[in-house]
Amino acid sequence: MTLDQHWFSEPHPASGSAISFRIKGKLHAEQTPFQAIEIYETTDWGNLMVIDGCVMLTTRDNFLYHEMMSHPALFTHTSPKNVVIIGGGDCGTLREVLKHREVESAVQCDIDERVTRLSEKYFPELCESNGDQRAKLMFGDGVKYMADLEEESIDIVIVDSTDPVGPAEGLFGARFYQSCFRALQPGGILVQQSESPLAHLELIKSMRNYMTAAGFSAVRTLAFPQPCYPTGWWSCTMARKGVELSQFRERGAQIKQFDTRYYNADIHRAALAQPEFMLEALGD
Amino acid sequence: MTLDQHWFSEPHPASGSAISFRIKGKLHAEQTPFQAIEIYETTDWGNLMVIDGCVMLTTRDNFLYHEMMSHPALFTHTSPKNVVIIGGGDCGTLREVLKHREVESAVQCDIDERVTRLSEKYFPELCESNGDQRAKLMFGDGVKYMADLEEESIDIVIVDSTDPVGPAEGLFGARFYQSCFRALQPGGILVQQSESPLAHLELIKSMRNYMTAAGFSAVRTLAFPQPCYPTGWWSCTMARKGVELSQFRERGAQIKQFDTRYYNADIHRAALAQPEFMLEALGD
Repeated sequence: MTLDQHWFSEPHPASGSAISFRIKGKLHAEQTPFQAIEIYETTDWGNLMVIDGCVMLTTRDNFLYHEMMSHPALFTHTSPKNVVIIGGGDCGTLREVLKHREVESAVQCDIDERVTRLSEKYFPELCESNGDQRAKLMFGDGVKYMADLEEESIDIVIVDSTDPVGPAEGLFGARFYQSCFRALQPGGILVQQSESPLAHLELIKSMRNYMTAAGFSAVRTLAFPQPCYPTGWWSCTMARKGVELSQFRERGAQIKQFDTRYYNADIHRAALAQPEFMLEALGD
Repeated sequence: MTLDQHWFSEPHPASGSAISFRIKGKLHAEQTPFQAIEIYETTDWGNLMVIDGCVMLTTRDNFLYHEMMSHPALFTHTSPKNVVIIGGGDCGTLREVLKHREVESAVQCDIDERVTRLSEKYFPELCESNGDQRAKLMFGDGVKYMADLEEESIDIVIVDSTDPVGPAEGLFGARFYQSCFRALQPGGILVQQSESPLAHLELIKSMRNYMTAAGFSAVRTLAFPQPCYPTGWWSCTMARKGVELSQFRERGAQIKQFDTRYYNADIHRAALAQPEFMLEALGD
């Protein structure tokens, strides 16, 4: 059957599939200098943010993505004090990062301030830590921000961006990875959203090759469920400077002093397992 | 945006979401005594089988489901010789089961012979083991088949059915689980598809309660990605008679003598990990 106007659909041409949410109405729409942002109210998924026609997040399932973009990296680093988030304007990743008490500074640099202002209004729970004195919200070019950072000055960089077209394209290129490598301390970790394991394996390979070429000594791709993204299955790719990635602070994750809904020590260990077809393609 | 007639959509009312595939055309449609079956050719997912409006499988992603419905149970059992598949008319689960050389007999009992005949035509790769002399294809009522089985006569029963409405409703009720328990040998395993961890947690709880009430001493729910099903995230639930489920023949899985695309020993171990919200709801 076909879906009528009570549904918002994101067709994903590259994979010939689409994901839709039943909507009650459109809450907001604007064209910023960078992109078109829409907010919908859904019947079952809370609010829905769409950028340039692509689903960014829903109230109901964003916990999967935001937890997997932050906690595996932070529990792998031995002492994550200085964290930079490139993109991440909805502030959900920032909230997860700030749950770690060892973090002394978390800078979020998104190119589009309007994403954050709309998130404050329509996804207030994601912005609840924006007032934390360790948090710094900046609005500007993430590629330039990383290039300008002092050498070996940060512990973790999280690249929480849109797809590798449009404003985010530069975040998937060789020069950006070189900047990240340079800005990270030894043992530092880059983690980046890396699209669908089923639909974007070639992109994942390319990212990993760029990361290795930039000097990172270990690279791992972790898959996780994400219903609102194409194929419902997503991934992040971690790269580490000078140290491997298969071990993490498992005991720390087991006794973590904060709540999560998806992540725990067992899920972290599980996410390091690779399906056969990914092993064949990526060789982790 | 909305999707035009070049897309097949399955709206899932219970979760207010929908999954669609871009199609080239409809290859077949018929009403059997039990259900309406349609076959479409898609642009990127091979062929697509739809029953009563619900996506059953695509050529591209069925490996996830079929491997997870079979290999975890078969590598948990110490010596799986006699296997019964209830439903499973597309024969994909049967094919995976027969990859295990220890299996001496695999009976598939689906209520609708037309599913199998259409699978032979449109998903021939799933039917490649139908001629195996260990395989027996039956067409009839799975509830009755299980009730009539000799006590303690089988090692594994796999319930590979449609959703718990219509023809499959009886496969989610207390009496059916009692039949399964009775038919299984000590150490025997029941594994059943158990819908989406995100959308159907109450159903999963109910199934697990029925399984425990029927006498099973251990119950585990394993989640896995499945792009063509609602929310893109699916699960199977295993129940075991008299023995627990956390250990499996890990070495056997590591040196398995057959190919898979998703399953391996690490993925099996990983599937036993539970996300926080499932731990809270199910307490595994």
